[in-house]
Amino acid sequence: MIEIQLPQIQDNEILERSVFFISDGTAITAEVLGHAVLSQFPITITSYTLPFVTNKIRAEEIRNQINTIYQATQIRPLVFYSIISSEVKNIITSSKGFCLDIVQTLVAPLQQEIGLEPKPELHRTHGLSEKNLSQYDARIAAIDYTLAHDDGISLRNLDQAQVIILGVSRCGKTPTSLYLAMQFGIQAANYPFTADDMDNLQLPADLKPFQQKLFGLTISPERLAAIREERRENSRYASLRQCRIEITEVEALFRKNKINYLNTTNYSVEEISTKIIDSMGLKRRMF
Amino acid sequence: MIEIQLPQIQDNEILERSVFFISDGTAITAEVLGHAVLSQFPITITSYTLPFVTNKIRAEEIRNQINTIYQATQIRPLVFYSIISSEVKNIITSSKGFCLDIVQTLVAPLQQEIGLEPKPELHRTHGLSEKNLSQYDARIAAIDYTLAHDDGISLRNLDQAQVIILGVSRCGKTPTSLYLAMQFGIQAANYPFTADDMDNLQLPADLKPFQQKLFGLTISPERLAAIREERRENSRYASLRQCRIEITEVEALFRKNKINYLNTTNYSVEEISTKIIDSMGLKRRMF
Repeated sequence: MIEIQLPQIQDNEILERSVFFISDGTAITAEVLGHAVLSQFPITITSYTLPFVTNKIRAEEIRNQINTIYQATQIRPLVFYSIISSEVKNIITSSKGFCLDIVQTLVAPLQQEIGLEPKPELHRTHGLSEKNLSQYDARIAAIDYTLAHDDGISLRNLDQAQVIILGVSRCGKTPTSLYLAMQFGIQAANYPFTADDMDNLQLPADLKPFQQKLFGLTISPERLAAIREERRENSRYASLRQCRIEITEVEALFRKNKINYLNTTNYSVEEISTKIIDSMGLKRRMF
Repeated sequence: MIEIQLPQIQDNEILERSVFFISDGTAITAEVLGHAVLSQFPITITSYTLPFVTNKIRAEEIRNQINTIYQATQIRPLVFYSIISSEVKNIITSSKGFCLDIVQTLVAPLQQEIGLEPKPELHRTHGLSEKNLSQYDARIAAIDYTLAHDDGISLRNLDQAQVIILGVSRCGKTPTSLYLAMQFGIQAANYPFTADDMDNLQLPADLKPFQQKLFGLTISPERLAAIREERRENSRYASLRQCRIEITEVEALFRKNKINYLNTTNYSVEEISTKIIDSMGLKRRMF
């Protein structure tokens, strides 16, 4: 028999909890929403993400895992789950965890409002079906387009771009373009201004016909220098002086050409992307 | 006064609802979860996604928009929201919409279990903070690595890859690699087998040292031919015969070299990515 040390909770101590994200699908929704909910509490978590839990044997293994943690700590693990099969679901909810059905919790009030029975089997959040196959092809096409038009590689077919992102090296153009393509199926080209352009910086002639598709990114020179330093230590490219010059020039170009721009310093790729969509009135597709 | 035509609901008719996804952040969580919940009901939706709703004026505009739809249809729009400011939130919930707070609905039961007050201001799901800045740099590094190792461009530094994805052209390698990098911060290389490799197909010598990192993708020849046809119409590359040969050869190679592989025909990028993570025991980072 193993002697178990129970955690002593003291005032002001940050609580620790084990958390499970369990799904019969990718578990992406469970994970994202679970983190959103948990981030409101001053606790630290140890998390386990368990996707594709579709049969009883797997569910029983997980129940054992949850119960083992409970027995060792006497603290109920938190369980965020989304499972359609009631057989599989019942195994999870019969564990010693504190179980929250992330989708059903919202389905119940909606059911009353809509006045129809929910059909859980209709649902597969991040799945592929006949219904969305052509949409899905559009997503892959957007990724292809975006890769082919990354970093100014190609300036052909810019009429097919929904947005053309401009900025200096390492201000966030590539991740933003890829996120727009991946998450929203948007064909996003991007074009870099390099150190060589900085004398008498002008909008390239190839971009001028697409004025209404242009969107600029900028960033604080300090953050830019830190990012560039990771790439090329002690280079002119990464020097704060060079970063300041480039940012000053590029922001002047944006203003002169009436190009909407965003300072990315404190924003994530998700925030930059949705701000661009919002600002340009682009369609947010769902996949 | 405009005369309003009220919709007549008949038996078996699919109900139509207007849906709002409203957030003071990116609205990505509201959108994903709202779609997950709604997909369980046999209804068609017209949706409006409204991110960055952080002030009263914007909230009042949206309330008016919701109320206008209600007045025109006499059907309450469904509103999925996540807003921290109670001032802004109250404006939305005072609309004629049926409002569901996607995060708070789950916070309430958790609060009781955890025994602590939630602090909504802590929370910013897809945001950037001092706390996650180094993690965030790791994500950007993963995207850089993945782009530099897409489609066999570079076989250098493969020791830094967490996974090396193998497969024929257009089986899903690139979108999967990018998704792994973007969503989970995983450094994913990918390597294509081309038609020229098919005679006496062998695992390239450069990949052999990394046997334990290899993961294969395959696809039905019919779906592959359809995808390739979009790229190069009536080509040998897109012919069903060629697709069959390549898939047969590649699957034989995977089996011979004991490389785990997945048939992607019916899976989304999210599903393929999470199945790879699961199968290889990779860490799922959250951003």
